[in-house]
Amino acid sequence: MDDAGMTLEARMGQLGRAARVGAAALRTATAEQRTAAIRAMARAIPRHAEAILAANARDMEEAAAKGISGPMLERGLLNPDRVAALAKAIDEVADIPDPVGAEIARWTRPNGLDIARVRTPIGVVAIIYESRPNVTADAAALCVRSGNAAILRGGSECIRSNLAIYAAIAEGLAEAGLPKSCVQVVGTTDRAAVGMILAGLDRNVDLIIPRGGKSLVARVQAEARAPVLGHLEGLNHVFVHAAADPAKARDIVINAKLRRVSVCGAAETLLVDKAAAESLLPVLAEGLANGGCELRGDAAARAIAPGMVEAVEDDWTTEYLEPIISVAVVDGVEGAAAHIARYGSGHTDAIVTEDAKAAERFVALVDSAIVLVNASTQFADGGEFGFGAEIGIATDKLHARGPVGAEQLTTFKYVVRGTGQTRP
Amino acid sequence: MDDAGMTLEARMGQLGRAARVGAAALRTATAEQRTAAIRAMARAIPRHAEAILAANARDMEEAAAKGISGPMLERGLLNPDRVAALAKAIDEVADIPDPVGAEIARWTRPNGLDIARVRTPIGVVAIIYESRPNVTADAAALCVRSGNAAILRGGSECIRSNLAIYAAIAEGLAEAGLPKSCVQVVGTTDRAAVGMILAGLDRNVDLIIPRGGKSLVARVQAEARAPVLGHLEGLNHVFVHAAADPAKARDIVINAKLRRVSVCGAAETLLVDKAAAESLLPVLAEGLANGGCELRGDAAARAIAPGMVEAVEDDWTTEYLEPIISVAVVDGVEGAAAHIARYGSGHTDAIVTEDAKAAERFVALVDSAIVLVNASTQFADGGEFGFGAEIGIATDKLHARGPVGAEQLTTFKYVVRGTGQTRP
Repeated sequence: MDDAGMTLEARMGQLGRAARVGAAALRTATAEQRTAAIRAMARAIPRHAEAILAANARDMEEAAAKGISGPMLERGLLNPDRVAALAKAIDEVADIPDPVGAEIARWTRPNGLDIARVRTPIGVVAIIYESRPNVTADAAALCVRSGNAAILRGGSECIRSNLAIYAAIAEGLAEAGLPKSCVQVVGTTDRAAVGMILAGLDRNVDLIIPRGGKSLVARVQAEARAPVLGHLEGLNHVFVHAAADPAKARDIVINAKLRRVSVCGAAETLLVDKAAAESLLPVLAEGLANGGCELRGDAAARAIAPGMVEAVEDDWTTEYLEPIISVAVVDGVEGAAAHIARYGSGHTDAIVTEDAKAAERFVALVDSAIVLVNASTQFADGGEFGFGAEIGIATDKLHARGPVGAEQLTTFKYVVRGTGQTRP
Repeated sequence: MDDAGMTLEARMGQLGRAARVGAAALRTATAEQRTAAIRAMARAIPRHAEAILAANARDMEEAAAKGISGPMLERGLLNPDRVAALAKAIDEVADIPDPVGAEIARWTRPNGLDIARVRTPIGVVAIIYESRPNVTADAAALCVRSGNAAILRGGSECIRSNLAIYAAIAEGLAEAGLPKSCVQVVGTTDRAAVGMILAGLDRNVDLIIPRGGKSLVARVQAEARAPVLGHLEGLNHVFVHAAADPAKARDIVINAKLRRVSVCGAAETLLVDKAAAESLLPVLAEGLANGGCELRGDAAARAIAPGMVEAVEDDWTTEYLEPIISVAVVDGVEGAAAHIARYGSGHTDAIVTEDAKAAERFVALVDSAIVLVNASTQFADGGEFGFGAEIGIATDKLHARGPVGAEQLTTFKYVVRGTGQTRP
C-alpha cells in the first residue's frame, strides 16, 4: 500500500475493496492453484531471509529502546532458524487437504430434491494480532488454503518484520497467478486502522479474528460491527481429583504449567480436591517448585504446603504466561466446576482422576472449548488435534470452538438439485 | 416478570440472570426431560386456547386502531385452527432427535489421546421478532429441544398474544420439572428493552437471532454487543437460463413467486437470459399475470413483454412479500450472478436450465445460503430440508447458514480422554 497523499480512511477503504477482489479470485481458484500459491510462498521466504532478519533487527532495536520487556521481546525475535521455520510452517499448510467444495452432507428428500451441504470460503478474514511475526506467515497460508482473502494487522512492534515477510508472500501469490490482494498486511501502525477494520471496511470484512491480550479483545468486543471469532486468553485449570494417580497428576501438572509457559494452552490455576489435598498437594507443589514455578495459594492450600505466596483475588483471573501458578483447594468435581465457571475463560480445562464417573461429571459440567481427562492442557493445539496449522484456539461458542485450522475458516452453502419441483 | 417498582434495567438484568439459571437446568437435563417439557407445552396450549384468542383479539383491535394494514395484520391474527396448529407445531418439535451430547466426530491420535467433538447447547438465545405469535411457540420448543434458554421479544402488536401463549409454555415447563426461566417472554413493549438485549444483558446472552424487516436487522447490526445469527430478508432470484425447459420454468417461477407471497423464500426478482428472452419471457410473464402478479420490468423486459410497469432502482432491492415481481433481462449465467451479487441478500437463489454445465457454473458463482437448480425457491424451509421446525433462514456466513433448526442451535466442545499423556 503506498502513501501517495491518501487519507488513512481512503487507503483502508481501498484495501477492503482489494480484499474483496482477492476473495473472489481465491474462491474460484482450483485447489491445485491454492496449493501452488502456498508452496511458492514457502519457497519465497528463504529468498527474503536477509531482508526479513534486517527488518526484524530494526523492530527489536526500536522495541528495546521503548523499554519493551523480556518475554514480549523474545516472542517477536527472529533468527535464521526461525525464518527457516516460517517457510516450513507455510509449506506444511500446503499438505492440509483443501476444504473448499467438500461435501459435508448430502441427502435426497422424498420429492426427489437432492440437497448437498458444501464447504465454501467465508470471504475476507481480518486477523488482528500482537507481535508474533510467525502469525503473518501462518495466517496467510491458512487463509489461502481455505480460500479466504486475508487482511493482517500485526502488532506495531513487528511492523517491519511483517511487511518483509509479506513481500515474500506477495511474490508467492504472483507466481501462482493470484492477485496479491489475496493477502494484505496493513502497512501502518496507526491504531485508527484497527477501528476501521472493526467497523467492517464497508462490508468488505466477513470475519474478524482477534489474537492477543485482554485489552485487544475488549476493544474488539466493544467496537466490532462485523462477526468476530473470539480468541480469548487461556485461563486454564488442572483439577486434581481425590482419585487421581499422584505420579500421573504430578507429571500432567508440571507439563501443563511449565512445558512452555507463554502458550495459550498453559495451565494458570491448579485446583486440588479437598478430600485428598493433604496427600496430593505436597507432591504437586514440590514438583512445580523444583521446576522453578512460583505458587500462589489460597488459605487452605497454604496450610498444607506452606512455601506458597498468598493468592489474591486477581490471581484467579490472571493469565500469567510465566512460571507462576495459582492454587486453590476445592470441594470435589462440583467445587472445581464452580471455580472454573466463575474464573475460567472457556478455553481448556483438565481433570486428573482414575474415577471414570468423576471424569464424566467434570466433562458434563465444564463448558469449555476443550475439556481433557488425564492429559496436559498443553495439547490445546491444532497440530496436536491433527488439524495442521491453526490461527488459534477459539473461545467463543459460535461457528468454531477450539483449534481454528483451515476447515474452521470455511462456511457452507446448500446446493439443491431438482428436476422441476414446485412446492405444494 | 412483575412490575413491582423495578426499573426496566433492573428487570431486564433479572431476566438475563434467570435465563442463565434456566440454561444450566436445560443443559444438565436429560433428552427425555426436554422431550417431556415440549410435549407438556403442546398439551397446555389447548387449555389456554380461550385466553390466547381473547388476548389476540385485543391485540388485533389495537393494531387496527393504529391503522396497521392488511398483510401485517393477517400475519398476527389467530383463530381456533391456528391455535391448534401452534400446539401441533410444538408437539412435532418433540419428535426431532435431541442434538445435545451427540458425537459429531471422534478420532484417536498416535499418542493415544481420544478426541471427541460433542454437541452442546449454546446457552442463552435471544430471539427478536416481529408480529407473528407462532414464532413464540416454535422458538420456545426449538430452544428447549436444543438445550438453550430462550429470551423471546416479539413485536409489540402481538404482546398480549405472546404472553398468553407463554402462560401455556411456562405451565408445560413446570410440569416437566424445569424452571420457567428456561423460556421467557419480555413483557414490555418498551423498545429500550431491545437495546439491553443487544448489549448482552451482562454477558447473559450468548446468541441474538433477529427476525424481521430491514430496520430491525439494521438496528441489531448497529447495536449488538453479543454474537448475532442474522436472518436477513429473502431477496430471492429465479434465473431462467436460455436452455431452460419453458414449461418447467413457468411452473417454477409461478410457484416461487405466488405459492405464498409473504414467506422469506418467495422469489422477488425474475432474471431472464438475453439469449432466449424473446421466446421465454412472454410465457413466464403471461403465467405470472394470470396468477394475479404485477410485473415491474427493465427496458429490455418491457420491450419483449409490454404489459409491465417500469422498474426503478429500488425494485431490485425490495422484498415485496406481495404479488409483485421485478423482471430483468441479463446476459447469461455471469450476468445473472452479477445481478444477484449486487442486489441479492444471500438467502435463496435458483437457476432453471437443462444445461448441466450452466447449472454448475451458477452454483459456483452464486454465494447464497441456498442455491437451487430446477426447483422453486419456496423450498427454502427447515421442514422441506428435513430439519423439522426452524427459527428461520440464516443469511450470515458464520455458524449456521440456511434453515436454522435444533441442530443449528447447538455448538460443540472437544472432549479429550487420555491416560496421563504430557506434551513433549
